[in-house]
Amino acid sequence: MGDLTLAVDIGGTKFAVGLVDAGGGVAESRVAATPPGGDARALWETLTALLDDLDVPDAVAGVGIGCGGPMTWPDGAVSPLNMPGWRGFPLRERLAARFPGVPVRIHNDAVCLAVAEHWRGAGRGVPNMLGMVVSTGVGGGLILGGRLVDGGTGNAGHIGHVVVDPAGQPCGCGGRGCLEAIARGPGLAAWAVERGWSPAEEPREPATATDTGPDTGPDTGPAPGGADGPKARYLEATAASARRLAADAAAGHPIALEAMTRAGRALGTAIASAAALCDLDLVTIGGGLSQAGPLLFGPLEEALREHARITFARRIRVVPAALGQEAGLVGAAALVVAPGSYWSAG
Amino acid sequence: MGDLTLAVDIGGTKFAVGLVDAGGGVAESRVAATPPGGDARALWETLTALLDDLDVPDAVAGVGIGCGGPMTWPDGAVSPLNMPGWRGFPLRERLAARFPGVPVRIHNDAVCLAVAEHWRGAGRGVPNMLGMVVSTGVGGGLILGGRLVDGGTGNAGHIGHVVVDPAGQPCGCGGRGCLEAIARGPGLAAWAVERGWSPAEEPREPATATDTGPDTGPDTGPAPGGADGPKARYLEATAASARRLAADAAAGHPIALEAMTRAGRALGTAIASAAALCDLDLVTIGGGLSQAGPLLFGPLEEALREHARITFARRIRVVPAALGQEAGLVGAAALVVAPGSYWSAG
Repeated sequence: MGDLTLAVDIGGTKFAVGLVDAGGGVAESRVAATPPGGDARALWETLTALLDDLDVPDAVAGVGIGCGGPMTWPDGAVSPLNMPGWRGFPLRERLAARFPGVPVRIHNDAVCLAVAEHWRGAGRGVPNMLGMVVSTGVGGGLILGGRLVDGGTGNAGHIGHVVVDPAGQPCGCGGRGCLEAIARGPGLAAWAVERGWSPAEEPREPATATDTGPDTGPDTGPAPGGADGPKARYLEATAASARRLAADAAAGHPIALEAMTRAGRALGTAIASAAALCDLDLVTIGGGLSQAGPLLFGPLEEALREHARITFARRIRVVPAALGQEAGLVGAAALVVAPGSYWSAG
Repeated sequence: MGDLTLAVDIGGTKFAVGLVDAGGGVAESRVAATPPGGDARALWETLTALLDDLDVPDAVAGVGIGCGGPMTWPDGAVSPLNMPGWRGFPLRERLAARFPGVPVRIHNDAVCLAVAEHWRGAGRGVPNMLGMVVSTGVGGGLILGGRLVDGGTGNAGHIGHVVVDPAGQPCGCGGRGCLEAIARGPGLAAWAVERGWSPAEEPREPATATDTGPDTGPDTGPAPGGADGPKARYLEATAASARRLAADAAAGHPIALEAMTRAGRALGTAIASAAALCDLDLVTIGGGLSQAGPLLFGPLEEALREHARITFARRIRVVPAALGQEAGLVGAAALVVAPGSYWSAG
């Protein structure tokens, strides 16, 4: 029984818990929706109900936790942006009290996804990589010399706040022109809405291509209903609008296409900077927006190859993340199962 | 005698060799000018003459080498940009043949300067730092978790090729908008020359400030002679023009001031990106241009504080490098003396 690690993955959309074996296989798991607007107690009870339901064996090898940031690290008092009910909540300490006598370790959820890709996904055996997530935010984790890099406060890997346009748009962090300000799904959707795109519309033929060629683009299916939805601008903070944008881009909508190009180029530029600074072998990209495929990866590669020109940087490869929904659990477990590579904090 | 390490520092301007003790003290050293346009043999003979003159003891602990890049690493076949006579020259191997039976280790010269600052300079005891050099080029070395980061090919730390302006000027690497394209001394001087500044002139009163206030600025001394010098544009590739530019900026010349501001802001922007990605505690800056003091560090801090807004990045400090001319030797020696921190390549 001591061979199983309890993994906990706490996000703004869902909570997941699972038992992960020493090879990174998820033996069993439970998932629940994050209680919207839940206070500290409601959030904790959601988690403990999941744990009760999982029927955790007495002798787990340890507990690995991934949680949305920010948090104090490694002590793990969490204040996830999307869960106002937890502000400085001692998540690691509370779980350590529930599972005494075993290591209980925590890291940022984007870091855990990077660790998962390195341990069991698209980055297996690659010594120097950045694992990225492009979704409601843009985050990542950095592995150099085969080891997870923590940085001074456990926050290394924040590629979302690399500056890609010094005079660019304001970012949620208070800065300007950060990758995240441009490439996060809701930011992209807002940019498109400002230019006349509406997330409630049916996909349209590309206006600018009508008379110039056969490029009507693939149709990914009918647009969902939504006539009773809120006004377009109201949707700018929702992940749904970003999915809609990607679907419209796939259907050839010119503003949606331009938005995806803009995001892709910003990603490629930031990756070029990371490649120069860290001499990376590989970047993996996961998260909802990464599923836009060539619409995002095409402009990404274009900007990357324009900017990553110094000889050693040209070798960098960018690939989609290989692991699916359980990646967060797998990465959290790795903090316990493979501390030589993924845990430095004692 | 085995307590002394032989250090070798190979640059485009000078060659230096020295004996460094286990505490980082330089017991003895010799310096010679790099033979301009020297072929492979002339360069090697310059080095061996220095070594003969140094009277290296029989039993050195090892040999540490810093050399201008690029090079293959860790085998150390060097092709320094400023020394066309060496292309794929097996510098490490040649020195290993001369000093058999001891470790002979090599790294980029900018990496050695960063190592020196971490080992014995302004970064002592700081776990996560970037050591930068701003001079004819812009380079650096990265130390994370108290260890030198090599990256996949020994090239981590190339902050000069972080993108600070995606639509910016072409860079020598073939890219566009790299920090180095903007902030390297010769690039700055060229930018100022294009706007009417001439490196041969006496420092002038600031044209725009003549009627607006008392800001005449300090006078750093008479301009050097040079009436028979080449035309201004011809000088753009010389370090001398960058020193002239810094002096003119100190004297209040508006174009020179604008150039220094431009460089400082580019540096601050790139440092903000590095701080986000690597969660850094400290940046040290050395090299000729860093001696411009507040004219450079003022705009640097301004741009840094505008962009490094995410909470953990705000703590970053930027300080001048503490070590002087011998830093290259000290850092090269550290590859041998302190391999636990500075050598990973076996």
